[in-house]
Amino acid sequence: MINLKLIFRVLGFLVLVEGLAMLLALLVSIIYKEDDLNAFFIISSGCIVLGLAVVFFTRKSSKKIGKREGFTIVSLVWIVFSIFGSLPYMINGYIPDFTNAFFETMSGFTTTGSSILRDIEALPHGILFWRSISQWLGGMGIIVLSLAVLPIFGIGGMQLYAAEVPGPAPDKISPKIKQTAKMLWGIYLILTVSEAILLWVGGMSFFDSICHSFTTMATGGFSTKQASIAHWDSPFIHYVIIIFMFLAGTNFSLTFSALNGKFIRVFKDEEFKYYISFIGIFTLIIFAGLLISQLYGVEKSFRDALFQVVSIITTTGYVTADYLLWHPFLTILIFSLFFFGGSAGSTGGGIKIMRIVILLKNSYYELKRMIHPHAVIPVRFNNHSVDSKIVTNVLAFFILYFLIFIVGSVIFTIMEPDMPSAMGAVATCLGNIGPGLGNVGPVENFYHIAPAGKWFLSGLMLLGRLELLTVLVLFSPSFWKE
Amino acid sequence: MINLKLIFRVLGFLVLVEGLAMLLALLVSIIYKEDDLNAFFIISSGCIVLGLAVVFFTRKSSKKIGKREGFTIVSLVWIVFSIFGSLPYMINGYIPDFTNAFFETMSGFTTTGSSILRDIEALPHGILFWRSISQWLGGMGIIVLSLAVLPIFGIGGMQLYAAEVPGPAPDKISPKIKQTAKMLWGIYLILTVSEAILLWVGGMSFFDSICHSFTTMATGGFSTKQASIAHWDSPFIHYVIIIFMFLAGTNFSLTFSALNGKFIRVFKDEEFKYYISFIGIFTLIIFAGLLISQLYGVEKSFRDALFQVVSIITTTGYVTADYLLWHPFLTILIFSLFFFGGSAGSTGGGIKIMRIVILLKNSYYELKRMIHPHAVIPVRFNNHSVDSKIVTNVLAFFILYFLIFIVGSVIFTIMEPDMPSAMGAVATCLGNIGPGLGNVGPVENFYHIAPAGKWFLSGLMLLGRLELLTVLVLFSPSFWKE
Repeated sequence: MINLKLIFRVLGFLVLVEGLAMLLALLVSIIYKEDDLNAFFIISSGCIVLGLAVVFFTRKSSKKIGKREGFTIVSLVWIVFSIFGSLPYMINGYIPDFTNAFFETMSGFTTTGSSILRDIEALPHGILFWRSISQWLGGMGIIVLSLAVLPIFGIGGMQLYAAEVPGPAPDKISPKIKQTAKMLWGIYLILTVSEAILLWVGGMSFFDSICHSFTTMATGGFSTKQASIAHWDSPFIHYVIIIFMFLAGTNFSLTFSALNGKFIRVFKDEEFKYYISFIGIFTLIIFAGLLISQLYGVEKSFRDALFQVVSIITTTGYVTADYLLWHPFLTILIFSLFFFGGSAGSTGGGIKIMRIVILLKNSYYELKRMIHPHAVIPVRFNNHSVDSKIVTNVLAFFILYFLIFIVGSVIFTIMEPDMPSAMGAVATCLGNIGPGLGNVGPVENFYHIAPAGKWFLSGLMLLGRLELLTVLVLFSPSFWKE
Repeated sequence: MINLKLIFRVLGFLVLVEGLAMLLALLVSIIYKEDDLNAFFIISSGCIVLGLAVVFFTRKSSKKIGKREGFTIVSLVWIVFSIFGSLPYMINGYIPDFTNAFFETMSGFTTTGSSILRDIEALPHGILFWRSISQWLGGMGIIVLSLAVLPIFGIGGMQLYAAEVPGPAPDKISPKIKQTAKMLWGIYLILTVSEAILLWVGGMSFFDSICHSFTTMATGGFSTKQASIAHWDSPFIHYVIIIFMFLAGTNFSLTFSALNGKFIRVFKDEEFKYYISFIGIFTLIIFAGLLISQLYGVEKSFRDALFQVVSIITTTGYVTADYLLWHPFLTILIFSLFFFGGSAGSTGGGIKIMRIVILLKNSYYELKRMIHPHAVIPVRFNNHSVDSKIVTNVLAFFILYFLIFIVGSVIFTIMEPDMPSAMGAVATCLGNIGPGLGNVGPVENFYHIAPAGKWFLSGLMLLGRLELLTVLVLFSPSFWKE
């Protein structure tokens, strides 16, 4: 029997947390004396009361948490958060219908950044703040999930890092969850504050600085401006955001090492090397392409190339240039970055650098295996040979990802009959990026998509954010069989 | 040291075979008394003399054939064949420049079917016949390669079938090559003749019947008409071609079993079941879609759906309807079929049904593995558990295929800046299909592509036809190191 009471208890506790987070948005409304004040007051107190009540009534639940409870909670958290989180948008009529509000909130909590809003600047500060903090909470949730919770269940490829710790990994990690989580939140908070200060120094308003540092560190990409980061014509601001997007897409346990002075570990890390190499290669090619097409000057070409590459590879989704106006060769290069994603253990979504590296290595080694069919040639990563089970898991993940992308694009053409637009929308939501191609491109939004399409994309965001298998396993009958 | 002499000997022998095949085209020229007669006379005698000379001068070569010689010969055969095979097009000026002639010939020998011709009906019969026979020879080459040669080297996934024969497989197969080859050619010939007779009975001219039976059985798709099979408005002809495309995309060893009355083996074969299921599902959806869009009547809708599905999944590439005029949902469904391919051991190209099935099963089993992390859950295929080495090989193949498709599409946009056209051209050539999307769609041709693009696509055809790894291994330094 599944421990329903415990599931309710955990969800109740998290709704309480969501209600408390709304209090911050309420505070913003009070400061700016805007008309979203009442909405935030009602909804946050509602969430807090409901959360407290559920926690109180389930206080006698058994503490036994198994796989079934774990996976169910993980998927439900994002759904429950998005349902309650969409209420502030609806009550004051800023996003009156539930479909749009849910899409926007799911896009927030999954740190995707796709938006249905057509006039962001018209929104009150409380709402804008709530939008940003939803991504920040989502990002915080995901690092804890991927570095502290999922490895216990053997998903997310983070077993590779767990394997570096000598001794039987699961026993070591479980009691460490709280400690690891604290350390990660510490880094997340430090980086957020640092970025906010730098952006403020760079000339952003205090409010915008905070909102953007929230959504950068979450690799979310929601902006307080309709034109996204292109709104600020400041190289300083652009470079600051590039650096923090880069950090947000880096494994947080590496950042922890760096903060402790262990730079050797950072630069020996294979995923980090590839992460930098991919960014370097793509930036150089696009920089060259932009120079040839003579769209902008040299510095701006470089900055735009670097910004867009880092923004897409880390799955943040901010824009400073409309890549759809570039030569199609550069546009499709950007589109191919939709299938990379941040590092494992970062807030970035997508396939992730580590998986890409293992996939490429395995294919290369297959040639060697063909030449020496009787030799056992394992994939090596960070100087360890990777267990073939992990390779198969990574490959299975990739196949599923590709399959969902293809089938998703096919289904989506029913609602959006333009092929690049359909493929762009599906890829960007599945990879938690933000902007797509065609009529969901960087200067467009998702407002015009049919309701069914919005629900479909919301599902893809969730699926992508939770590493596919975490959600799909809930649909497997043998998961529910004793 | 690589046995260069032997490589020359084998290639010399094959050029001799090509020269003999050209004699057949010469015969056609003589019958129709057309102006391509001299060209065929000169080139076929040239090939025969050259072939004989090479065979004569290398008669003392050692018989030692290793992996290195094997892989080198396989890749070179298609290139050498295409170089000599393009001469007949060039000499009489029907395709004056080498790039176009090479593209057309490579498209022939790899059984792709993409064409640069803008007025096929203006060509003399000898040239048309040569075009068709180049595909037929290519198809014959590929079934021998995939069922008798590659399994020895452990590629192509056919180890699975080899594994069904008890005892150590390689020893068993080597002496059997000649016998297996004879049996396969027998079936290939019987099916070709049967189809030619049926098409002729159905109202095609004798010449067209032979040409189309050649290109159907090779899953090639070259037609003697600019409009392809749409030229004939005859349901009978369409259904006959559907049946033979289906057979050409079926594992020839299964057809052999069926001809020997062992129907149980055929219907127990898992790849065959999935092959039929995929065709059934896609046909039904497209049939329904065509009915809804009310483009044609009921029977024609069904026939067009079935024809296009079978044509694309088997990688033949004939067309009876322009799928680009359908609703984008149906077009992208057809495009997703570009990533299927025929059965293993058929003349069909692409990823192949068996690989798709193993990939899907492995991803599904991964969910089970996640639920029971300590259980060993192998992929099962045809009631045997599949060696994890084969699964890794299949997965590596898929990753490479996908990577080549993505990188190829990106590079190709430099030459062809329309994204769907670029993706369509790369996918259709890599999968040895024929028609693509956009301006290389079913009623278009490849004439307008820049020369660099044509060479690029010719390379992709070769890569796809030879199962990627066979060609790529030649570029691996460790392959050449002792």
